[in-house]
Order: sequence, then C-alpha cells, then structure tokens
Amino acid sequence: MSFPQAFVDPSSIAVVGATEDRAKWGYWLATGALAGADRRTVWLVNRRAAQVLGRPCRPTVGDLPQAPDLVALCVPPQHVLPVVRDALAKGCRAFLSITAGLGADEARLAALLRESGARMIGPNSLGLFNAATELRLAWGNFTPGSLAIVSQSGQLGSEIAGLGARAGLGVSRFYSVGNQLDVGAVDVLESLVSDEHTTTVALYLESFADGPRVVTALQALRRAGKHALVLTTGASEGSRRLARSHTGSMTSALDVVDAACRAAGALRVTSPRELVDTAGVLDAAAPPDGRRVAIISDSGGQGGIAADLATERGLRAPVFTDRLQSGLRDLLPAAAAVSNPVDLAGAGEADLQVYTRVAELVAASGEVDSIVLSGYLGCYGEDAPSLVDAESAVIDRLGDLQRTHAAHVPLVVHSMSAGSPAIARLREHRVPVFDTIDAALGALGHVTRLGGQPRPTPVTVRIEAAVPEPGYWAARTFLSTLGIATPKAQRVTDAAEFAEACASLHPPLVLKAGWIEHKSEHQAVRTGLGPETAGAVFREMYERLGPGEYVVEEQDTRPGVVELVIGARRDRDFGPTVTVGHGGVHTELWRDVSVELAPVDRRTAAGMLDRLRSRRLLDGWRGQPAVDVDALIDAIVAVSEAIAGTTGVADIEVNPIRVGPDGALAVDALVVPRGADVVPKTACAATGVNGRRKSTEEQEISREHVH
Amino acid sequence: MSFPQAFVDPSSIAVVGATEDRAKWGYWLATGALAGADRRTVWLVNRRAAQVLGRPCRPTVGDLPQAPDLVALCVPPQHVLPVVRDALAKGCRAFLSITAGLGADEARLAALLRESGARMIGPNSLGLFNAATELRLAWGNFTPGSLAIVSQSGQLGSEIAGLGARAGLGVSRFYSVGNQLDVGAVDVLESLVSDEHTTTVALYLESFADGPRVVTALQALRRAGKHALVLTTGASEGSRRLARSHTGSMTSALDVVDAACRAAGALRVTSPRELVDTAGVLDAAAPPDGRRVAIISDSGGQGGIAADLATERGLRAPVFTDRLQSGLRDLLPAAAAVSNPVDLAGAGEADLQVYTRVAELVAASGEVDSIVLSGYLGCYGEDAPSLVDAESAVIDRLGDLQRTHAAHVPLVVHSMSAGSPAIARLREHRVPVFDTIDAALGALGHVTRLGGQPRPTPVTVRIEAAVPEPGYWAARTFLSTLGIATPKAQRVTDAAEFAEACASLHPPLVLKAGWIEHKSEHQAVRTGLGPETAGAVFREMYERLGPGEYVVEEQDTRPGVVELVIGARRDRDFGPTVTVGHGGVHTELWRDVSVELAPVDRRTAAGMLDRLRSRRLLDGWRGQPAVDVDALIDAIVAVSEAIAGTTGVADIEVNPIRVGPDGALAVDALVVPRGADVVPKTACAATGVNGRRKSTEEQEISREHVH
Repeated sequence: MSFPQAFVDPSSIAVVGATEDRAKWGYWLATGALAGADRRTVWLVNRRAAQVLGRPCRPTVGDLPQAPDLVALCVPPQHVLPVVRDALAKGCRAFLSITAGLGADEARLAALLRESGARMIGPNSLGLFNAATELRLAWGNFTPGSLAIVSQSGQLGSEIAGLGARAGLGVSRFYSVGNQLDVGAVDVLESLVSDEHTTTVALYLESFADGPRVVTALQALRRAGKHALVLTTGASEGSRRLARSHTGSMTSALDVVDAACRAAGALRVTSPRELVDTAGVLDAAAPPDGRRVAIISDSGGQGGIAADLATERGLRAPVFTDRLQSGLRDLLPAAAAVSNPVDLAGAGEADLQVYTRVAELVAASGEVDSIVLSGYLGCYGEDAPSLVDAESAVIDRLGDLQRTHAAHVPLVVHSMSAGSPAIARLREHRVPVFDTIDAALGALGHVTRLGGQPRPTPVTVRIEAAVPEPGYWAARTFLSTLGIATPKAQRVTDAAEFAEACASLHPPLVLKAGWIEHKSEHQAVRTGLGPETAGAVFREMYERLGPGEYVVEEQDTRPGVVELVIGARRDRDFGPTVTVGHGGVHTELWRDVSVELAPVDRRTAAGMLDRLRSRRLLDGWRGQPAVDVDALIDAIVAVSEAIAGTTGVADIEVNPIRVGPDGALAVDALVVPRGADVVPKTACAATGVNGRRKSTEEQEISREHVH
Repeated sequence: MSFPQAFVDPSSIAVVGATEDRAKWGYWLATGALAGADRRTVWLVNRRAAQVLGRPCRPTVGDLPQAPDLVALCVPPQHVLPVVRDALAKGCRAFLSITAGLGADEARLAALLRESGARMIGPNSLGLFNAATELRLAWGNFTPGSLAIVSQSGQLGSEIAGLGARAGLGVSRFYSVGNQLDVGAVDVLESLVSDEHTTTVALYLESFADGPRVVTALQALRRAGKHALVLTTGASEGSRRLARSHTGSMTSALDVVDAACRAAGALRVTSPRELVDTAGVLDAAAPPDGRRVAIISDSGGQGGIAADLATERGLRAPVFTDRLQSGLRDLLPAAAAVSNPVDLAGAGEADLQVYTRVAELVAASGEVDSIVLSGYLGCYGEDAPSLVDAESAVIDRLGDLQRTHAAHVPLVVHSMSAGSPAIARLREHRVPVFDTIDAALGALGHVTRLGGQPRPTPVTVRIEAAVPEPGYWAARTFLSTLGIATPKAQRVTDAAEFAEACASLHPPLVLKAGWIEHKSEHQAVRTGLGPETAGAVFREMYERLGPGEYVVEEQDTRPGVVELVIGARRDRDFGPTVTVGHGGVHTELWRDVSVELAPVDRRTAAGMLDRLRSRRLLDGWRGQPAVDVDALIDAIVAVSEAIAGTTGVADIEVNPIRVGPDGALAVDALVVPRGADVVPKTACAATGVNGRRKSTEEQEISREHVH
C-alpha cells in the first residue's frame, strides 16, 4: 500500500475543530495549516463559529465547496465517527486525527476506513509536519532541517524535535502515528526512503509487531544513504508494565531489537538526548570506519577524562606511532603530551594556530578514525577582544579540515563555551560541537557503531532441512544434515541391543532416554559408563522409565574443550533468531549471549562470538591451545539457516556444543517441531533470548535487583 | 599543618605581574584582587609599568610599604625564584603562583619554602576564589554558591564552575592546586570541613599519593554534613599514559579509589557534567534513603524511557500497592497508568492541578524514596497565556511539596522547557530541574548512592596476628589463628611420615610441596589420592622436588560447594585492602570481584558479596541448598583485619575458599611476609585489585579490547 501524498503535500486541508483558544489543539492545527495557505487551500470547520482567526468557518466538512485532500480533526471522541462519516460522504480519503479515548468507536472507525479505502493517521496522533511542503499540523513549531521523526508517542517525538532545535538540528518531517489504527510507523518509514531532505530518521516504537517489514524499511533507508536511530522501551519491569497498561501491547525483547537494528544498519539509543546528539554528528559527517579516536586537549585533566569516557563509550585512543609523536613534538612545548591524548600544555594560549596544526597532522596521519578536541577553544575571544581574530582563523581552518576529512576522520568538538560566537561559526562549518565531553563522546561512540560495512542482506539460505521427528535421535540426525558433528552413537530399545552397541563403541559412554525432553531433571541421562557399569545402569534406567528409544553414545573426553550453547527460535515480532552463548554449569549466571536475526553469514557469526565476554576462552585460555573457531562458526551459520529455512522447526537448542582444537561436537540437542508444546529449559531460554515471554520478564526483574 | 588564613581571607594582597592586557593572567589576577579592595589592601607590582588599571604600581614586592599577607604571582618561569626570594626577604609567608615550566627551579623553590616556613599554592595553579571573603585570584569570574572545587587541573576545575553556573549552581571556594609543590588538595579539603558556605565538595585528583589522609579528610567533611564528589582518571590506557607523561605520576587504581570513596561516604563520578548534575540535586535535597523511585509523566513514552533509564542508573520503579493505585485511579482518567510509572494520560492538560495531587499522594505514601516528574510541565504557560496562572499555582504547590518531603522523598523534575519562567520559579523552590531525563536520573542515581547509613569508621581491628613464616603449613596456621577453618592435615618430610599421615586421614587426600609458591605451575600439588595411589605419588614428587615441608590433607569433597577467592594486600596509595571474588577455573575471565579498604566490618563484608555478579550462587543455585554465608563473611572480616592489623604481612590469598551449607574451608592459601619477593599469581592478582601495577594495566588494555 503506497503512502498517500495527502500526508506529504496535500492539495487542500480542512481543519475540523478550529478555534482561537491557544490552549486547544484546534488553534495549533488551524494556525499551522494556514502557515501553508500560499501553496494549498485551507478550510476551517467549526460547528458553532462563523469566523475563526479572521477567516470564514463552515459548520461541517459537508458544507465545504469540495472534498479536502486531507481532513485534520480535533473533536471530542464521540464526534470523531460522525465527522469521518460526513467527510467520507463528501469524498475525503485522508485523515489526521488528534483525539484520544475513542473506546469502542475505534473498532467502528477501523471498519469504516477499511470499507472506504480511506487512510488515517491516529486517531490519537499528535500531528505531522513536513518542512519541504510547508505542511504543519502540530502543536508548536518546528525548526526545518534534516531529521525525520516517526513516533508512536507524540510527546516523545516533540521532545526530540525540541532538543534538536536547541542543538541547531532541524526537522525534515514529523509524524506522530499514535496507536496506528491504520497508518503505521512502518508506512511512514517506507515513505521516507525517497525523501531527499532527510538524512537521519528518528524512530520511537514501543513494540515491533511488524518487525520484518520494519527491518526491510530500515535497510532501504540505509541503502538510500540515510541513517536510522531507534528508541524503544522494555529494558525494565516498569516500562513493560506501562506499555501493557497504556497501549495493551507488549514491548519487544531488546536484544532482538538490537539484532534487528544491526541487521538493518540502524542503531538503538536509549534516550531522546542520545538520539539528538548522535543525529547531530551524522548531520555533519560520515560515520568513522573504526574505533580509533585521537583526543586533543589543552588540559591534561580534560584529556584524561576524555580518554576514560572514550573507552567507556566503546572507542579507543591508540598510542600514536613514533613518527606522528615526533611530528607533534616539533609543534609543541616540551611539557606537552604527544602519545594520545595530546595535551597542548599551554601551547594553545601562546599561539592559537597550534590547535589547527596539531589537528591537521593527526587527521592526515591515518592513525585514527576520528578526532575529539576538548577544552578551551571557543572561549578565547570571549576572554579577550584581542584574541577574536586569531580564534576565528583557527575556527575557519578547522572548518577546512572538516571539509577535507569528514568523510574519513570526522572532527567533533567539546567546548567549555559552546554558546560563544566562535563556536556558532564552528557549527556553521559543520563541525559538531557539544557543551559536555560526555555528549561529544557518547554521540561519537554511537556514530562509530554505525560505521564500517553494513551487513549484506538478504543472506541466502543454503539449507532446507526436513521437519524433524521428535526425540534425541532425530535431533542428532537433524544436526547431521546441517553438517554439525555429533558423537558416535547407536539407538537401542532393550538390554541386548544395548550390550551389542556398547561393544562397538569406545568407553566412556553416555546413555540417554532419547524421548524425554528435560533429561537431567528426570535422570534420563547417565555419563561416564564403562564396560563393568554400563549394563546395570541401563537396567536401572529401563526399569524406571520403561521402553522407548534409548541412545548410547561415546562421551566426548577431549581435553581443552570449551562448552558453548547454540540456539535458534522464532521471535514473536522479528521471526527467526540465532543465539550463541557461554555454556557449562554457570551459563544462566553469566548470561553471556549474543543474538542475531537468522540466518547469519560467517562474518556475522564471527561477530557474535566476538561480542561474548568469554570470547577469550576460544583463543587459548591459560596456556590451552586455541579451539576450532571455524567449526563453531559453521555450526552457528547452519543452525541459523535451519531455523530460517525450515518452516516446521520452532526451536533448536544445541546444548552444549563442545569445541576443541580438533573440531566441534554437539553432545546434546533439542529440536522442537512447530506446534509442539515443548519449552526448552536450557541455557538460552534463561537469557531472555530464547525463552518464553514470562521467563524474559523474570530475568529482567532479577537483573534490576542485581544492579 | 594548619591551612594559612592568607589563602582564605588575606588581609592584603600583592599581584606581581599585573597588566592591562586581557589576554594575560596578570590582568585577571589584578582585576580579581581589586574586586575585593573594599575589604583588604591590594598592591599591584610590575617591573616596568608605573600604573596599571589606573592604579599606581611598584616595581618589586620589596618596594611595597609592608609585607603583603598573600603574594599572587604570574611571571615568566625564570622570575619565580627571584620574586619569591624578594618577597620572603620582605617577610611574606603565603604565595599563589600561576607559572608552569619551572624545570629545575621547582626543587629550589620547594627548598626555599621549606626553609622559610612559607606556603605556596602552585607553582602552576590556575588560581583561587572564595565567595564569602570576596577573594578572587583567577581567570574569569565565578557565580557564588555552595560548591567548593578543589582541582589538580585548573581548567577542569573551571569547567566544573562553568557548568555549575549554567545550571544555577554557584561556587563557595575554588582552589586549583596545580602540581601541589607545597599545599596539596588534602590541605584544602581539611580546611573546608569548617566552611559553613560549602555543602558539596568537588575534588579532582589524578593520583592519591596521600590516600589515607584524603580518606580521613573526606570522612570529616561527611561528618560535618557535607558531601564530596570525586573525579579522577585512570580508567583507560590513554589516561594512564597521559598522567605519567604530563605529571610523572601514576593514576590510582580505580576500584581502590571507589573503595576509598565508599569508606569515606564520598562518591566517584566520571565527568564534570555528572558531577555538576549530582551537586545540583545535593544542593536542594538530602540523598534518598533507598533506590525506590516513582516516575510520573504526562506521556507514556517518556514514562517508559524514564523507567528504563532509572533501572540502568541503579534505581528501581516498584509497583505501587493496590491502595496507592486505587488512590491514583480516583484522581486520573481511565486511560491513565497508575502502577508506576504513572501516566497522566492527558489529565494534566485537562486540569494542571492533577500534577500536584498525584505527586502529593505518592510522596505521602511511603512507597518510594524519590520522585521524578518527566514531561511537559514548564511548557504550558509558554504555549498559552491563559495557562500561566494555573501553571504557577502548580509550581508553588510542588515547591511546598519539596519543602515538606525533600528530606525523605526528594522531587526531581525533567522538563521539556527547562528554560521557561515557570521552571525558573520551580528552581527557586529548590526543586532540581534538568533539560534531559538522562541528566535527571543520572544525578538522582548518584545521589541515591550517597544515601543510607555511612560506613562506621574507624573499624576496630580485633586480630593482631603474628607475622607468618613462609610456606603453606605456616599459612594454614595463620588462617587458623584468624578463625578460618582448613582441612585436616599433617606435615611430613619423608615417605614414612607420609604413610603414617595417610593412615590417620580420610581419603581422598591432597599432597602439596608446601614451600613452593605457585604449586600448579610446578606440579607441586596432587589431588584425589587414595590408599593405593598415594605412596607412588609421594615418591614421584619427592624425587622431582627434593626434600622439604610437604603437607598432606583431606580433600574437600562436599557437594554443593561454591568456590570463592579472598585476598588482601597493601595498595600503594590507600594501604590495606581486602578482596573477595568468584573462584574456580574461570575466575580471571569473569573478574567478578569486590574490593574494600581494610579492615571491614560484617556489614561491609556482606555488601561486598552483594556486589558480586555471582552472588546468586550463594543463595541456593539451581536447587542446591544455600551455603553458609555467615562463615564466608567471618573469613572476609578476619582476612581484612589481619592485613590491617599485622604490619608484617604484605599479601594474603585464600584461593579457593570452599563454602558449603555446613561452613567454609580454606583449601589453599598464600601468606606473603612484607619484604618477601613473592608475587601472588592467582585470581585476585588478575583482577587488577590484588596484582602489581603492570598487571593492572595489562588488564585494562584487554578490557578496552573487550568493550
């Protein structure tokens, strides 16, 4: 369904409920609509007033000379349906509604829209704005610019716009989509792909019911050269409770939202301020290709604080090469620090041009991906009129530097006087300036995460595995078809078959009652069986659990093995996901897990491992040899392709997969066919990634307590 | 040594190097000093000018009619010594010096000061300020207020003052102590204890060479009802490199600084902005007693974001009781959320008094320790003149609420229009207002950490253990004197004694070559010995390692045991510390460790356990019974008292201590006498807490890579 042009640049607008009372929405819709009256017809509608804001007013839409292209209505809830009916009869097909509390009328309204093929934003929208088409149907005003705001919460959208305006970052379009009775956020996202005025999109959603379509839209934005910053809730018990209470919706699992953002080349932020700070940098420069940052300050204290915060924000201040250090030493006094951070040590006060010389040398060195300048620049001219010209010259040369290098080594500035004329001039040169080092490095850290290569999409699914039968033997077979190795094994149904199997396998052996899902709980697994003990163990288990498909397999006793868990499931909102985590007895304690939308390619799978805190275990921990990471990556890719390519599978759990220097071996697994009522109870479920909703919440509660 | 009154309220000042050039320090010192000329004599000194700023000028201090109480000098480095000599001859005994780069003259200056008993702030200070005594010897100006700033970095101190001024938070005193040739930050801290104008102290230091004295001074400030916020560097490789490069000093270990802050009732923050935000809340209200926060918003989106950020900042938005929910429901429309967060759901727009009614009900409920109001309040009057009065009335009632409840349930506000007249009025009512929810909750989170009971100090040391002999047997004995249980054991020197010992102990047994420090490395420990194998194992080890004090002990085979590590050492800056951490094979991977200054009492030891991420293992993990936490706490307290009370001990490592439902057992230990060249290589060393400096740095580097 294409996005109606009436929401972008309507040829005519009727404002229903127009009024002169500034405390009412009807005033802001009317004055906003009239601001665009030189390019479109604007009608005011009010049941009682003949005139509003000095213009004639009609009692109903039906009384208008023709059908308006867009009807903006702000009327009491009980009047919404009659007004819409009247307008539909007149021939209207696009509505913006600013009315909450429709109750049962909401379903009737939805039906009415469906039947007539009309579209509506709202019904509880807080308005829309399009700078390029002078379309303003919202409370207050907007500063025109390059940030598009699409928000389920109108007020949060307004907060973003307001913070942006204060930071000199304007809005291209603003759509408050409310409870999305008809037009959804994703419709707006799709419409923004071709908007030349938008460089960054701010998206606030509480749930991603249409997850895959949102991902596709975000990917399209990325391909069109735009960046998307995503704000959502659900990190706390409180916000989840609130979402249920006020919209009846369940928030999406945040780790899956993050995975979706990674897949789409978008980035999740946690507050309007973070969003606006980050958009401010994106407005001026391309994301850096890497995390290496140069820190230049005229204060050792400020440089040190900046280095610490940079590290906390995921950046890295590498030691400069001897060559670069020596070049800097030539520019600076003996007391200066030149290894990164650079401390000008008073050189800036003696000669302001030192700022630019140092920045130019660093930018051209190829040793960093971004530069942060922190300190006094911007204050000199305010202190002493005699320094105004010299400071201006520095500002202009930094502007040149940004024009030359912003595509590869953007410059971001923290100034102690971010409101000075010199800094205003620096902003005009498209250098992002912040009044705190926290904000500067927070934004740069976020932007850096948007850099580098986007994940190639769509990933091709190579494997179309058959829907598995229930039981452990079938799960083993399923893994084999994915190319994942399992221990040598046989299935047996009685003591005789068991004895025969034992004779052909190398001890120690493992016995499993293959049809039982949670084996440990039911003592349905026994390890370490030797020739003497095996028979008795089988008899005991058989007596207790009865006949069934038992599996006896060789126990993996390789030394130097690392245990991990690989899981896959279908997320309620985003569909297939794959998970890898630290395994072993304390898996649930450390919750050291990475998740991505499935399928993943090898590069993405390697990135999942890199994000694990326990990554170091794989590289040769405490003198052990490194394990076969390639085999592990193969297994992650295969499981991800299986969940994505096999519609009949609900859950896959390989727990654990034991990886040694000579390969990976899946020593237990559960594959749940779709529709089965089995809930995996293993490690990944406990991470909140692979579990049911309730489990996720319990997790989060205890995370709060741990904090 | 008492702090000279000349640095607080000098009776007379001479400014040496006074000038009319606004780009020079001599101008700012002169104009600043003259601003207090109505309460003290101010002389200007300049070698060449007869007049400066319209006042007569003398060529040298020697030419003044009498010795000034304080000499403020800003002269080229080579002139500092002659000027000080001249002034000392005149009888001056207090100096403020604003000159960097003295080189070798610095040592001569120090000697000169020592000999004459004179005191100096600097020599590379960036000035001082005292609002109460109109003493201003600094660049720029200060807004008077309640925040005292003591900073090793002058510019960072200025940044704090500047951010404070913009947030409406003024400065009581400002001391830039520079490289502390004579007067140190700790001298200033001590002088602030009795300053009635100061409510919060901001301290920036790069290293805490005089750690224990700083802790004592911070404790004294706390007892005097003041709060201290500490800023330092050293969290990254970059800041550590910088500190060494520009001051030659090594940054202090941050986990020990944090421990020192906890012991002192102070709080470490990570940026000037965090510091100022936090000081802003402290200026208005007492720290809350607990982490329970009520979130009230007129937007579901903003309420949700606030709940998530509150959790991230260590706060908790608990579900309100049915009683409170029902009370709120009576005040609010049906669509409102009342369980916490509260979403007014448009009720505020309909009747602004809803804000105060809801806040009053929540404040009086006893169900929370603080309240955050987030959203539109502050904007209403700006939108519509008709709402100005109603909004003012709300503001005044919120002011009343703050006056009534600030001591127990402080109110903090995030407003989308933090610069409006209504918000200015709210600030006058001593309600902290922030322009972002991040800042509001960040500051409230910090302030909350300052709440609750301060740690009682000094803790009495009950144990004065004897200096231990080297070796494992002596370490066991040492632990026994501390009341820490060890496995039943015997020491043996040959095969016959070994056989006899084996007969009297219960297998499985453990054999250790007790004199070898890093036993695993040298295969000097063997476990799981039974009657059949023990003899051969002893012979093999004896042949390999030769004669010595062997120890054979019963192996701890209790099920459901949790392994931890307890360590103690002497920190270079802060003295004795105690550490407890997660034990076992992955100890170094997870770095799950708490550290405190030693000694600790039981309450503090319990708090150390509570901070471990693996805390849950102790409470009955996955169906296991809970372990004997009391015994563990006893052991932590005893080890902490031993390091603090026994001057002859350098390091204690109990690794591991195995804790089961029936008690704790130290199954290996190393006690290093002071002066011994043994370096513990076990888990605590790897945490950066209990290791040598180099080890700490390597850690931090890899932490950066992990990020």
